[in-house]
Amino acid sequence: MSRAWTAEAFYTQLEEPPALAEHTQHVREFVARQGAEGRKVVLVTSGGTTVPLEKNVVRFLDNFSAGTRGAASAEYFLEAGYAVIFMSRQFSQFPFTRWYSHTTNPLFDLLEEPAEGEERVRVSQDHVKGLLPILHSYHEAKRRGRLLTVPFVTVIEYLFLLKNVSEAMAPLGRHGMHYLAAAVSDFFVPTDKLSEHKIQSDNQSLTLQLEPVPKVLGALVDSWAPDAYVVSFKLETDDKMLIPKAERSLRNYGHHLVIGNLLQRRKYEIVLVEPHDHTWIRLPSPPAAPPHEIERDIVAAIAERHQAWIASV
Amino acid sequence: MSRAWTAEAFYTQLEEPPALAEHTQHVREFVARQGAEGRKVVLVTSGGTTVPLEKNVVRFLDNFSAGTRGAASAEYFLEAGYAVIFMSRQFSQFPFTRWYSHTTNPLFDLLEEPAEGEERVRVSQDHVKGLLPILHSYHEAKRRGRLLTVPFVTVIEYLFLLKNVSEAMAPLGRHGMHYLAAAVSDFFVPTDKLSEHKIQSDNQSLTLQLEPVPKVLGALVDSWAPDAYVVSFKLETDDKMLIPKAERSLRNYGHHLVIGNLLQRRKYEIVLVEPHDHTWIRLPSPPAAPPHEIERDIVAAIAERHQAWIASV
Repeated sequence: MSRAWTAEAFYTQLEEPPALAEHTQHVREFVARQGAEGRKVVLVTSGGTTVPLEKNVVRFLDNFSAGTRGAASAEYFLEAGYAVIFMSRQFSQFPFTRWYSHTTNPLFDLLEEPAEGEERVRVSQDHVKGLLPILHSYHEAKRRGRLLTVPFVTVIEYLFLLKNVSEAMAPLGRHGMHYLAAAVSDFFVPTDKLSEHKIQSDNQSLTLQLEPVPKVLGALVDSWAPDAYVVSFKLETDDKMLIPKAERSLRNYGHHLVIGNLLQRRKYEIVLVEPHDHTWIRLPSPPAAPPHEIERDIVAAIAERHQAWIASV
Repeated sequence: MSRAWTAEAFYTQLEEPPALAEHTQHVREFVARQGAEGRKVVLVTSGGTTVPLEKNVVRFLDNFSAGTRGAASAEYFLEAGYAVIFMSRQFSQFPFTRWYSHTTNPLFDLLEEPAEGEERVRVSQDHVKGLLPILHSYHEAKRRGRLLTVPFVTVIEYLFLLKNVSEAMAPLGRHGMHYLAAAVSDFFVPTDKLSEHKIQSDNQSLTLQLEPVPKVLGALVDSWAPDAYVVSFKLETDDKMLIPKAERSLRNYGHHLVIGNLLQRRKYEIVLVEPHDHTWIRLPSPPAAPPHEIERDIVAAIAERHQAWIASV
């Protein structure tokens, strides 16, 4: 039943997603501009990938991820002087706007209707102080062209984009970093095995057969961007698996660092696993007010290691 | 392998979601207040439901639905004088705010930074004209207490809420309407069959066994809210299945109306299927500017039928 997909077979046998060439071109231009200014560039991947179960997709598998880790990290990378390629699941959390998204703190509630006859809409004065620095950083990242957005939905789109974006970043050499925070599905259904129409229910049980997604981290490290600093993530729910699996990943793919986290404690505890070392980062829980986000510390620690990697040539 | 779950077995054997009692109490109070003012109340369900595949959920099945149909319909029901219980998937589209959500038209891009020394944030004057009527309707619905929000994520939460909200609406008699636009999973994994931790991949294929979700529409119509006007939705991708399946649903559950739509044409073509009649609603495609949404016509047609149902006692 199961084929073990190699990266090579995957990229040659599956059809290219429609917007791939356009996104790739944007990344090439962005990289050329940042590279010319000597700036470091980080690719931050963020959010979950979907696995459609039908060609006319009604049902899909998904990975739990609001995209907060990636969106928060992107903010701190910008603050640290990086240019950021933010490759994220469509509609997942976005740098800066995340502070006012969804139903938790909707911007609509902060907007005041004008008095009769006036045609002006203001943010309520109570919220201006909190909003201003965030709005400023958002506008500045856009104005200076330091933030490029690349959206994906399915795991197939994600994998094609990852290859092309990584190859487009190769000219940056050691000044490129890959910070792979997206929650990527381990399984997928190849297009030729998808049902054409919506799977009918009729009170029957349903059996789904999924094939393993090819592991592409090795190809990224060996061929796509061989000089880049590469950070992957490992999310587990069983704490006994966390460090062994992170170490195995480093041995298998030969990259620089795995950020390990447990689903339940991911907001205030992570571990940086390197070939001969591991370093815990822990915040007091519940966190202090004003909130200190763990992504601030993660990015500081990673940026320092990236700089050492650049300096070690 | 497969049990055919009855509604009764489902509600007695599965564990109640944590926030159920609290949401139910809010709905009871809302219904009492609206009922006392003689107002019609519609329950609009919206967005897709998830099916977690693990107890510590990393992976889940989902149904494709941004929640636009439900959010748009809720706006037109409010405009038509209804009070609305908006029971929707967490983070799916929301009435009014949907016009400025996500990356298509983010509100952040419309906010102007103040000049040096000023502490004031305004919406850019180009956008005020478009924003004002939407902002006004949003604030008015909140100010008048005409819109109650009830969030869900999983199909199990959805089904428990649907039962409790429907029972809480029963005192409205014929003044209650159920407009079931949510994309509800047909399959689920009962809690006792869930894997405790994240399913490990290890380059193996994965087989998932899902059981059919119990059909509860019959119970809603017969017992939970026996006098209410009940509208369900049928989404198909194969046009030959659409009307036969809608008619079969009416025969099986004895409710009033099924709104049939095809995934590919759902934005500009739907069919109202009733026991002895069906009526197409079609918009020119591509739609005219300023956009005329098909939900405006759907709600007008349904509100008229609901009024006839109230008058026919």
